[in-house]
Amino acid sequence: MINMDALHDAVATRGPVCVGLDTAIEYVPEPERARADSDASALFDFNRAVIDATIDVCACYKVQIAYYEAQGLEGMRVYARTLQYIRNRGALVIADIKRGDIADTAARYAKAHFEGDFEADFVTLSPYMGMDSIEPWLDQVRKRGKGAFVLMCTSNRGRHDFQEKMLADGGRLHEAVGDRLDELTGQYHGDRGYGAIGAVVGCTDAREAMAIRARRAGQFFLIPGYGAQGGGAAEAALLLRGGNGGVVNASRSILKAWQGRTPDRDATLSLVAESARLAVTTMRDDITAACAARPSGAGTAGSR
Amino acid sequence: MINMDALHDAVATRGPVCVGLDTAIEYVPEPERARADSDASALFDFNRAVIDATIDVCACYKVQIAYYEAQGLEGMRVYARTLQYIRNRGALVIADIKRGDIADTAARYAKAHFEGDFEADFVTLSPYMGMDSIEPWLDQVRKRGKGAFVLMCTSNRGRHDFQEKMLADGGRLHEAVGDRLDELTGQYHGDRGYGAIGAVVGCTDAREAMAIRARRAGQFFLIPGYGAQGGGAAEAALLLRGGNGGVVNASRSILKAWQGRTPDRDATLSLVAESARLAVTTMRDDITAACAARPSGAGTAGSR
Repeated sequence: MINMDALHDAVATRGPVCVGLDTAIEYVPEPERARADSDASALFDFNRAVIDATIDVCACYKVQIAYYEAQGLEGMRVYARTLQYIRNRGALVIADIKRGDIADTAARYAKAHFEGDFEADFVTLSPYMGMDSIEPWLDQVRKRGKGAFVLMCTSNRGRHDFQEKMLADGGRLHEAVGDRLDELTGQYHGDRGYGAIGAVVGCTDAREAMAIRARRAGQFFLIPGYGAQGGGAAEAALLLRGGNGGVVNASRSILKAWQGRTPDRDATLSLVAESARLAVTTMRDDITAACAARPSGAGTAGSR
Repeated sequence: MINMDALHDAVATRGPVCVGLDTAIEYVPEPERARADSDASALFDFNRAVIDATIDVCACYKVQIAYYEAQGLEGMRVYARTLQYIRNRGALVIADIKRGDIADTAARYAKAHFEGDFEADFVTLSPYMGMDSIEPWLDQVRKRGKGAFVLMCTSNRGRHDFQEKMLADGGRLHEAVGDRLDELTGQYHGDRGYGAIGAVVGCTDAREAMAIRARRAGQFFLIPGYGAQGGGAAEAALLLRGGNGGVVNASRSILKAWQGRTPDRDATLSLVAESARLAVTTMRDDITAACAARPSGAGTAGSR
């Protein structure tokens, strides 16, 4: 069974929330930072508390490597420990690294993020250099069932600069990217109706979301932009298919859910954990309700 | 003085070669690997030997992070040590990381690669997500003279997949990227006629090279694809302006220059160093000769 099948089953069992561990040291309550030996160990303890509190109510985790790189070598150690902890607990993890390079370099990246200290189940990739920047990752897709989400249509304002450009031979750039990804989705398919190569698709515009989902039946989506970036449950539901076929990522709204519930000086990791769990279950229920509220035609067409 | 000015002056003094430290453990002679405490220390010793042997004949170094990530946490330590060694010796270093992410994530990446353990003088960036993935890096460009090279037109076959696509409103995608970068080049200019934000431009097609250089007078180029990827001195000369305005990267042809000169079992770091230096000076002289051989109109127009 490929990882994308396992992710599909996780969504079916526990809902489509992807917990984004974009953990900054500012998110850790002051007493916990004071108590820890170092910022690095405070970050790891924070992550562990969030993971333990959400593992039975989320589909997977996404770890944004930038937050750990920013802490230097010690940060990279926390990154590695976080990935290992998630995998040891039997959950799936997406390394949000957005790599895009070619040939031997890409093969080295694939080794870095699918093996050894930084092993993840999925990675995110950037397509600007072309399909020969994706191909070197496919070896581990074939051999070990690994998966990837390639940037297609993101939810930030800057998507208009290039992704949304109309091409001379028709369609937008992100549609050309999506078409090339569809070829891979077809070649590396699993047993649940989705391919091992998925796409990153933002959820800020309802009409575009419906068009994209309609064109990409077999693509599993990583959906960012929930909450903080303006997208909501209704848009996310349009990108899912009968409540599956994608995971919806949120980070700050989960990690910082504890803030404001008590003064910082009284906050504990128990509060962090409890608040994160509540944020995840609320989000999951909102998305599930939005999926149920979709016009039955669209909902049924998408369900399996 | 911004870093791009310092890079311009380095090219003027020592020629346009950028030594690519894409160091794989296979490039290290067998006896040196056996002698070292670990692969990590063998990699660092190898890098140090190459740096010491080339520092007075190259413009700068480019360190490809993928090769170090592939060795896990120990590899990241070698990456940090290599960058620090180059900077401590007073040379300039480009972190080849091709990052492209938005908002707070991009700001964390900027902290990661312009400060602390992984501090570099320049980074490479990928533009797919749009200009708001470039903007968060500019704070360190303004405050500390840092610089970046953004992927524009690369030299790999996959460039045809997206970069070379014709847009409905005219021009190719990479030209649209170049136009947006030109705005930044103008805003963040130095004292040598170039801006702090340069572009990655491959050198495999002569006609395209001339067109790109003509359109982008103020952009400093990072030029990959020399040697191993099929580009040569003539194409590189077309992307330079009177022998400056860019650096030309080579990696394997420098790092592996020692191979074939002696049986692996007899190879030493002295041989590695001497061979690397010869590869760099030969490449530098070839490019200089190609610049001198350009039609005088083009050469003169480009020179400063």
